[in-house]
Amino acid sequence: MLRVPYDDLFGALRLAMLRLGLADERAAMCARLFAETTRDGVYTHGLNRFPRFVETIANGSVDVNAEPVKAAGFGAIERWDGRRGVGNLNALMCMDRAVALAREHGVGGVALANTNHWMRGGSYGWHAAEQGLFAICWTNTLANLPAWGATTPVLGNNPLVIAVPRSGGHVVLDMAMSQFSYGAISAYSKRGELLPVDGGFDTAGNLTRDAAAIEASQRALPIGYWKGSGLSLVLDMVAAMLSGGLAAHEIPRESTRETGTSQIFLAIDPGNLIESQEMLRIAEGILESLREATPVDPNKPVRYPGEETLRLREENMRLGVPVDPEVWEQLKSYALPTPK
Amino acid sequence: MLRVPYDDLFGALRLAMLRLGLADERAAMCARLFAETTRDGVYTHGLNRFPRFVETIANGSVDVNAEPVKAAGFGAIERWDGRRGVGNLNALMCMDRAVALAREHGVGGVALANTNHWMRGGSYGWHAAEQGLFAICWTNTLANLPAWGATTPVLGNNPLVIAVPRSGGHVVLDMAMSQFSYGAISAYSKRGELLPVDGGFDTAGNLTRDAAAIEASQRALPIGYWKGSGLSLVLDMVAAMLSGGLAAHEIPRESTRETGTSQIFLAIDPGNLIESQEMLRIAEGILESLREATPVDPNKPVRYPGEETLRLREENMRLGVPVDPEVWEQLKSYALPTPK
Repeated sequence: MLRVPYDDLFGALRLAMLRLGLADERAAMCARLFAETTRDGVYTHGLNRFPRFVETIANGSVDVNAEPVKAAGFGAIERWDGRRGVGNLNALMCMDRAVALAREHGVGGVALANTNHWMRGGSYGWHAAEQGLFAICWTNTLANLPAWGATTPVLGNNPLVIAVPRSGGHVVLDMAMSQFSYGAISAYSKRGELLPVDGGFDTAGNLTRDAAAIEASQRALPIGYWKGSGLSLVLDMVAAMLSGGLAAHEIPRESTRETGTSQIFLAIDPGNLIESQEMLRIAEGILESLREATPVDPNKPVRYPGEETLRLREENMRLGVPVDPEVWEQLKSYALPTPK
Repeated sequence: MLRVPYDDLFGALRLAMLRLGLADERAAMCARLFAETTRDGVYTHGLNRFPRFVETIANGSVDVNAEPVKAAGFGAIERWDGRRGVGNLNALMCMDRAVALAREHGVGGVALANTNHWMRGGSYGWHAAEQGLFAICWTNTLANLPAWGATTPVLGNNPLVIAVPRSGGHVVLDMAMSQFSYGAISAYSKRGELLPVDGGFDTAGNLTRDAAAIEASQRALPIGYWKGSGLSLVLDMVAAMLSGGLAAHEIPRESTRETGTSQIFLAIDPGNLIESQEMLRIAEGILESLREATPVDPNKPVRYPGEETLRLREENMRLGVPVDPEVWEQLKSYALPTPK
């Protein structure tokens, strides 16, 4: 494994984004979102997505300089058209808009249509929490998950993010509706390892931990069986109906052509609702009770969502950010100065 | 099984509520919420909860005529103190308040502290959807679920409700964070049946479908293993921190003394955001794609959350609402005219 200083990773990404045609500030912000994702240890959704990001620009799914426009608004809620722009920039902009609406109205919401893959959903939760706000956001995706009781994929894995601001470490949940992503299933399959818990069905319709069998059946499992199936469906309905955008079943099925997704961003500003010291006392009490739980393995204390992120962030800033050497070389080949 | 006409069920419940000391309108509304829950087929949370409801009044957990008061508010978000009043009335009132805020601001939120068990969470989702609004609400509960990686219960099962308004049948998801409730686990155990999927751990720490083994270990499983564990935690944090109320770990552990819960109610009014015909077209497209999925069992079409509720509602209104004869007798003994 190769480790590179964060600034080098960011710098190379920024040059690559310029080369791909993003305007100055947009290139820097897009690069920052990719670099921070890898820095935080979410390796699947940072630098390792760069090659696919390049493909989506090349095939016309992503319009690098299209900026979202407001389609409608009333009070604290707005509907925006993402115009097939860069997914992470669109999402960040809409979370920022939800934060601004929440600062004005206590709570704010944005429904975004016609956007692209937002990469790491947690980014927008962290972003709101860093400003002291609570946030809930989700996206739909191409249909890759059978509904409960079906064998064919009609649901997206529709990641859901809930962020809780807390000095000393925000608590940020970022979870897809599938028990494992196909990326994770493929990694287990390549290593010839069993999944830690059932991750789908084999072609005979039995629940299985055999990753290769799930790749063969294409029947990954929603979290909580019928429950995650229902949750995925309603998240898709809310996002598509409020934004007026595509639903999961309408999004192109090929991963490099997955475009036109719909997203929801909600932010809550607690500033005028409750004393921050009181909120912190409650948060600490909850995390303390978690730490005091009896662990299954005495060497593995129970963690909260976001805790490992902070540990990896610190480690990767100190030792360098781990990168895949091949992807790093590909990035650097893009990171040449833009031809004048 | 005994079936009774809906009006008889409602009437007996109303008289019982009067007998328990609820004022006229409150008695009628509380009775309606109990009766509708049973009418809709959620038998665990309607009439069958009446004996426990009586107990919580008798032991002082529920103050039958305490009404919620507003503790703070800013724009479209408010914080209310439930004053340990009747859980379903408090929840209905706060969802109504969120709906009113959403009508004024597009989106509205209420954080409620110091309340009691809300019985069927779905009721408040149906209530908002019947008014044409989207709703998201959740409650925390006493700690009955071990966090992922722990053997002792520190999390609530924290039911989450998401409601999507749709003429022709609202879509209402109502799901707890545990794969099965202890009530369901106990029912399987009594019948000597295996759970349909793993529902927890045995005392040796192995995942199991053996309900009796889970009763022995008290290690029920969160949906999606680590994912539902994280979701339960953040729902608890948002509810307790924004309401200033108790977190799951602070709520009395005995089910008849479970009081002081914290809840969140969010409503979104799509009226000024998007044409209702456009929303309906999107909703129908999503449900159509679900109906077109290949079912595992050709005789069992794939259903959306709320679909079975509508079927049972119709059937129970036509044939009478199924009641447990013993609980029905107990109810009638309460449903005597209030002594003058």
